[in-house]
Amino acid sequence: SISQDIDHILETQSALAIDLGGTNLRVAIICMKGSVVKKYVQPNPRTFEDRMSLILRMCRDAMKDAVCLNCRILGVGVSTGGRVNPQAGVVLHSTNLIQEWSSVDLRTPISDALHLPVWVDNDGNCAALAERKFGHGKGVENFVTVITGTGIGGGIIHHNELVHGSTFCAAELGHIVVSLEGPECSCGGHGCIEAYSSGMALQREAKKLHDEDLLKVEGVDMKLSEPITAAHLISAARMGNSKADAILNKAATALGAGIINILHIVNPTLVILSGVLASFYQAPVQRIISERALFSTKGTKVVTSDLEEPALLGAASMVLDYTTRRIY
Amino acid sequence: SISQDIDHILETQSALAIDLGGTNLRVAIICMKGSVVKKYVQPNPRTFEDRMSLILRMCRDAMKDAVCLNCRILGVGVSTGGRVNPQAGVVLHSTNLIQEWSSVDLRTPISDALHLPVWVDNDGNCAALAERKFGHGKGVENFVTVITGTGIGGGIIHHNELVHGSTFCAAELGHIVVSLEGPECSCGGHGCIEAYSSGMALQREAKKLHDEDLLKVEGVDMKLSEPITAAHLISAARMGNSKADAILNKAATALGAGIINILHIVNPTLVILSGVLASFYQAPVQRIISERALFSTKGTKVVTSDLEEPALLGAASMVLDYTTRRIY
Ligand SMILES: [Ca+2]
Ligand SMILES: [Ca+2]
Ligand SMILES: [Zn+2]
Ligand SMILES: [Zn+2]
Repeated sequence: SISQDIDHILETQSALAIDLGGTNLRVAIICMKGSVVKKYVQPNPRTFEDRMSLILRMCRDAMKDAVCLNCRILGVGVSTGGRVNPQAGVVLHSTNLIQEWSSVDLRTPISDALHLPVWVDNDGNCAALAERKFGHGKGVENFVTVITGTGIGGGIIHHNELVHGSTFCAAELGHIVVSLEGPECSCGGHGCIEAYSSGMALQREAKKLHDEDLLKVEGVDMKLSEPITAAHLISAARMGNSKADAILNKAATALGAGIINILHIVNPTLVILSGVLASFYQAPVQRIISERALFSTKGTKVVTSDLEEPALLGAASMVLDYTTRRIY
Repeated sequence: SISQDIDHILETQSALAIDLGGTNLRVAIICMKGSVVKKYVQPNPRTFEDRMSLILRMCRDAMKDAVCLNCRILGVGVSTGGRVNPQAGVVLHSTNLIQEWSSVDLRTPISDALHLPVWVDNDGNCAALAERKFGHGKGVENFVTVITGTGIGGGIIHHNELVHGSTFCAAELGHIVVSLEGPECSCGGHGCIEAYSSGMALQREAKKLHDEDLLKVEGVDMKLSEPITAAHLISAARMGNSKADAILNKAATALGAGIINILHIVNPTLVILSGVLASFYQAPVQRIISERALFSTKGTKVVTSDLEEPALLGAASMVLDYTTRRIY
């Protein structure tokens, strides 16, 4: 029937999504319903030229596969670390997690090579877009997503739209300061939540404990094979190591205070945690909010994301939302 | 001429503005151009009943005067401490600065008594509206105003509109946390910028110094007549008292860090400081931002408000903007 044909056409609408992280460069074909049809992963090259040519090569390969997979690619969405001007499709500035990655026009070369429209935003904002389209943020007018992975990032949805800020520097949630004299942060500042609560920060503390031979639990084989990570700290604390527990408490308190600052500034309905540490932080952050936030924000709900690939799905959602909406 | 007549009619359009603060209850007739035509001040009564009847009495008096003053009152705007639901015209919740002031419908009784439309918002949001219509915020799409007076409050303008938040608790800027173990705050929390940088906090520190006989400067008559206030602390520091200077430095650093948190969350173009301490904090806050904020927000400008009556002007602006706009 005609309606089945139309359903079929709609289902084949897909996006090419690119995720540029500190470690890997990933490309994926993502269909309208949000499933990852095919994914390609390579180490992210260290130089600008190698990175750009690898991006284009991976995209061309994916475009070929998309034809065989019956996926009609409507455009390309890019998620990248750093500050992004999404109107221009340009990476303005990155930390040294991604080298040679400032003032980079991504739209022009990708669009020229593939003859497709290109959208670009940063990883935190893409994660928020992913939640809005496919995750816990569906139908929620005001929410914030906080990514607790190697670093800490995030995105803010206000009245159903991303908050980009006047210099595209809004929602730099990792660099919310919760201590004037706190530990040094990758940004050069002190006491940012990234310096307390990120995977990097926990790994730093785990290594310190391990160096002092304190990352152990009486009568338990901790299997402390290198590299020491945040996971070792968490399991030591769970098995009764009080020093590990104190470090994690401090990390959760700092993250909770940072999130309370978000609540007292934009007052969203919902906080979505994603990243590897999300499920660890969900309960303590919920508790800290109920203890320390202002009366009217104490009830703000904290949930853990159930999206597998927030950056890729968010990158895809820019393509899928813009190319299929009726009103421009 | 007809155009002169129309100009004259437009100029007579005015608002009744009410400001409900911790100390005073103030009513003013404010004309379209933003000048205060007449102002009425009374101590804010301690009980709900006394307060409501005084509000209505002062408004009725002002309405009579308005006729003689050739001011055509288009409506009533109310600025109050506490959390406000502006859609309902209801004060949801106040700190104990204003007693018996929770779940109070202000719109119905005022509107019933005066037969005029009534708008209500909190003092911080009204200050932001005042800047948008009459102050440094004119034509600025994204800005934040921070009031540093007895307490600390503020409002956020994003895409030319106030950010109210999902439970009307956005822009509670006084309760941004910058220290996990900081001094206790009026909200019950710890390390809020209000607990470091407000007039109350500085007065508390000034009194402590004075009690230890340390609020003095060698060879200078400090005229330390009671009550001891923030002003004594500032003049002691200016005349070389290093302890007073250290306290003020800490206060400015805390305020600066709190404002950096705002920059990293909503990234406005402009920060407007108002309240009695604004001119004192302007330079140090500008410096702290340039030293500690992320690269893309380092250049955010900090200015001091030049509005005499931000709360009253903001309350009036709700009336003047809504009753005279062409599109609803
Ligand atoms: Ca972000
Ligand atoms: Ca406010
Ligand atoms: Zn930082
Ligand atoms: Zn507080």
